[in-house]
Amino acid sequence: MRIKENTRFLIVGLGLIGGSYADVLIKKDFHVSAFARRKETIDIALSKGLISEGYDYVNEDVIKKSDFIIFALYPHIFIEWIEKYAHLISPGTLITDVTGVKSSVVYRVQSMLPQGVEFVASHPMAGREVSGVENASGDIFKGANFVVTPTPDNTEESVETVKMLGWMLGFARVSVLTPEEHDDMIGFLSQLTHCIAVCLMTGNEKPNLERYTGDSFRDLTRIARINDVMWSELFLLNKEKLLSNIDVFMAELQKLRTAVKDDDVDTMRKMMRMSSDRRILFDKKK
Amino acid sequence: MRIKENTRFLIVGLGLIGGSYADVLIKKDFHVSAFARRKETIDIALSKGLISEGYDYVNEDVIKKSDFIIFALYPHIFIEWIEKYAHLISPGTLITDVTGVKSSVVYRVQSMLPQGVEFVASHPMAGREVSGVENASGDIFKGANFVVTPTPDNTEESVETVKMLGWMLGFARVSVLTPEEHDDMIGFLSQLTHCIAVCLMTGNEKPNLERYTGDSFRDLTRIARINDVMWSELFLLNKEKLLSNIDVFMAELQKLRTAVKDDDVDTMRKMMRMSSDRRILFDKKK
Repeated sequence: MRIKENTRFLIVGLGLIGGSYADVLIKKDFHVSAFARRKETIDIALSKGLISEGYDYVNEDVIKKSDFIIFALYPHIFIEWIEKYAHLISPGTLITDVTGVKSSVVYRVQSMLPQGVEFVASHPMAGREVSGVENASGDIFKGANFVVTPTPDNTEESVETVKMLGWMLGFARVSVLTPEEHDDMIGFLSQLTHCIAVCLMTGNEKPNLERYTGDSFRDLTRIARINDVMWSELFLLNKEKLLSNIDVFMAELQKLRTAVKDDDVDTMRKMMRMSSDRRILFDKKK
Repeated sequence: MRIKENTRFLIVGLGLIGGSYADVLIKKDFHVSAFARRKETIDIALSKGLISEGYDYVNEDVIKKSDFIIFALYPHIFIEWIEKYAHLISPGTLITDVTGVKSSVVYRVQSMLPQGVEFVASHPMAGREVSGVENASGDIFKGANFVVTPTPDNTEESVETVKMLGWMLGFARVSVLTPEEHDDMIGFLSQLTHCIAVCLMTGNEKPNLERYTGDSFRDLTRIARINDVMWSELFLLNKEKLLSNIDVFMAELQKLRTAVKDDDVDTMRKMMRMSSDRRILFDKKK
């Protein structure tokens, strides 16, 4: 499937990310249908002009007519949806998702799809510390990264189409990884960082710390305001990679701790210089 | 000493922080003298209108005439300066500093001062990932915290004057802690967070991670661009408190790791909810 001007999109799940996809696509004059669990969500999306039409139930007719379906659901709800409704999807339809873990989801979903329906998984590396369609905006993708995680079952054409979706949405960089590479990467860059932020917040209950803090602690804990239902699910779906990344980090922190304990200024400074040099790579693209 | 309109300030050390103090004070029409090591620094400060006069040497006459001296130097340079030149300071002069560690500095400096010269230590909890007088601006104090760390040797009047300096500089909150409380607090909020940022940067050298990262990793590593000379000094001057705070954090991360390993969703979610609730306290005051 290639995106053309009459391509009909269906977004299943209208949270922050689903709503933000809708925001970009509708502004490019595509037909954007959406399913959400609650009528209120649909009403907000319609009043914000994010969608062409919306339903608080699974509308079979809309599924049949859709060319490109984007699932913006929690992983287990996505899998349940596919189990129940995949047979309604027309041959030739392309599917992608926004799920934050891949190898535990991608192969399973691919195995349940009817003949002629293709799923190319992807992960928009964007988010905010607020949620819900009321906060949706295509602006959250500016300067951000988009990762496509195809499997050997995918066709080159469909992989290219999902990459094109990433560019269209406004992402600064579009990359391709295997599901396994993605999960290791995300275990480090995203899941470990959320673990650290939570532990900084829960590990020290001294009163009034907020009266003394500087920006460094605020930076490291912005993501400590965390959706406990979603993230505990994501952690368990990527357990082995997350555990090994926690171990790598703890070993490194132990190394720095030993340097401090032993007055080993050389090691401390070497680590700090390496850190400073390497951090430059991660500046957001303008 | 109380601040009046004819109070003469001397700032020793014109880096980012010293220059930013100067920026605020000169805009309030105070007379602001400054010492810096390099002539170029003085020239930049003069051309930016940050100071009334500046010297790249220790001008005895300026020291004698100053009512309020602010030391914005690395800890060991501050101590060396006091050893060499404290005898030049006139009785009745008030001194403060900006040093990031306190108990290893405050008592030592107080013990070296001539009769009638008082040192009330303080710590502006503000900074940027850039340095130098060329980046100085009083704006960096907006919404930030200022901590005064008096000892039993200080007079109530002088402590009040240094608190007033914090308010005048534009800090959102001014607090008082003992030097020991300060060092424990800073070991957690500032030094531990810098250790974490460095270890995130140095612990995983996989290539191209910057292509896949989201904002969470960027947030947690903004401070990974770190001045290795200054921070290795600060770490060693606060060694015991830093080590114990690293240990507290590692134990908490180990607790979360165990919850992930054991599929213990209850503990994970409980930690995440506690984290989310507690993080609200740390939002920056507008």
